[in-house]
Amino acid sequence: MDHASSLRETGWDVRQRARRGALRGVTQGLAPGHVQANLAILPREYAADFQRFCALNPRPCPLLASSEPGDPALPTLGRDIDIRTDLPRYRIWKDGEMVAEVEDLREHWREDLVSFLLGCSHSFEEALAADGLEMRHIANNTPVPVYRTNIACTPSGRFQGPMAVSMRAFRPAEAIRAIQITSRFPAVHGAPVHIGKPELIGVDLDKLLAGQPLTLMPDELPLFWACGVTPQTVVAACRPSFCITHAPGHMLVTDLLNSRLAVF
Amino acid sequence: MDHASSLRETGWDVRQRARRGALRGVTQGLAPGHVQANLAILPREYAADFQRFCALNPRPCPLLASSEPGDPALPTLGRDIDIRTDLPRYRIWKDGEMVAEVEDLREHWREDLVSFLLGCSHSFEEALAADGLEMRHIANNTPVPVYRTNIACTPSGRFQGPMAVSMRAFRPAEAIRAIQITSRFPAVHGAPVHIGKPELIGVDLDKLLAGQPLTLMPDELPLFWACGVTPQTVVAACRPSFCITHAPGHMLVTDLLNSRLAVF
Repeated sequence: MDHASSLRETGWDVRQRARRGALRGVTQGLAPGHVQANLAILPREYAADFQRFCALNPRPCPLLASSEPGDPALPTLGRDIDIRTDLPRYRIWKDGEMVAEVEDLREHWREDLVSFLLGCSHSFEEALAADGLEMRHIANNTPVPVYRTNIACTPSGRFQGPMAVSMRAFRPAEAIRAIQITSRFPAVHGAPVHIGKPELIGVDLDKLLAGQPLTLMPDELPLFWACGVTPQTVVAACRPSFCITHAPGHMLVTDLLNSRLAVF
Repeated sequence: MDHASSLRETGWDVRQRARRGALRGVTQGLAPGHVQANLAILPREYAADFQRFCALNPRPCPLLASSEPGDPALPTLGRDIDIRTDLPRYRIWKDGEMVAEVEDLREHWREDLVSFLLGCSHSFEEALAADGLEMRHIANNTPVPVYRTNIACTPSGRFQGPMAVSMRAFRPAEAIRAIQITSRFPAVHGAPVHIGKPELIGVDLDKLLAGQPLTLMPDELPLFWACGVTPQTVVAACRPSFCITHAPGHMLVTDLLNSRLAVF
């Protein structure tokens, strides 16, 4: 695919490529401008508690859509979505342990499965980059550093646990701008939950939960956004009998435009 | 005046009280909800440069209105304003030195004088307080600490100088909220220009330009807003042959509502 056609690629195009096995890598940078989403699939018996967990914790778990049980379609997120085939890679979990990484869910599908699609930081990072704010993990092409905090999520049934946060470093005036920009996007984690003083939320910058460490420059402040890793760790801790997630970085690319998520 | 009638007091009421000499104190807390404004009056020969200085430096110098030369009215700010009588107290400056503090400008008035009214932090502080954010200088009933920075204003003719900033301390999550709230009010200084790390803008928290010092708590970050002291120090440094300002804290109370200044 040449550069010009890549620029015009839509969410539907990306999903079709994944569906026919022609896309196996991460989705970052694909179909620019389109909302990408985290995926968690749970049996119906867990669905009500998890749906409520997301409602109670919208910063780490901004729910974009959930499916009917057994239905692989997500009509509010895009045309003709088949959640079983349209992501490049999935993880299968049994009793809280990952048991397989697969490129197609059709042979694992069950009529009691409910899909949950959650907003992802790719959307607000696009808005930050469009404003000229440089993010070092993107410049370095490394995964964003993620930390476990001492901020407890509001529990719902069996789902509970601490909030995970991603960290991006900015100089102070840029930090203020980053807060303004991401405040416009509550559907994709919204404003940071913390700035400066990582120790106040139980974070040691050298002890990561996921991603790659970044060195803070003397003129930078760390900003912490609620992170989509939160629902993953919360679900893992609950050890459901069965669960499916996207493989890290291998997201659902939707038909929604990031710019349409802005609230003002 | 009893409490109930004070709550209903309008900008017009406050101005009438000042006009007839019945109000001589500061205006903080009067006519709640109404925009208060800083005043600078300059001879016509300085007016074009100062008007452009404000346009070039909207964060420290958010110009709400300027008058026709010699005209004491400000029709866009309120009904029947007479700038010569409607503030409780003024300062007269000659060649950059304060020569008098007066309660009435009528005997000092000249046909070449142009009035400039600038937005004031009282407006955004009202929005912060309404959101439940406590400001220690208000709780202590002391003037907000003000610092000279190493941030140069954009010069216009003879007007130039460093930006002054006011400082308010908040815990990190409150700091993020304070940035969101004040971002809505660009007409009254808007978002902070800096957060944390005072040394990066040339500020030593122990060396004040004005106001009273505040002790930072270990869980607080200092936030710095562009301050209406900036035009005062810039005008003083230019040593105009003649100038009038409000006395500190003795503002013009307008008919505008703070809530109407919000941009979204």
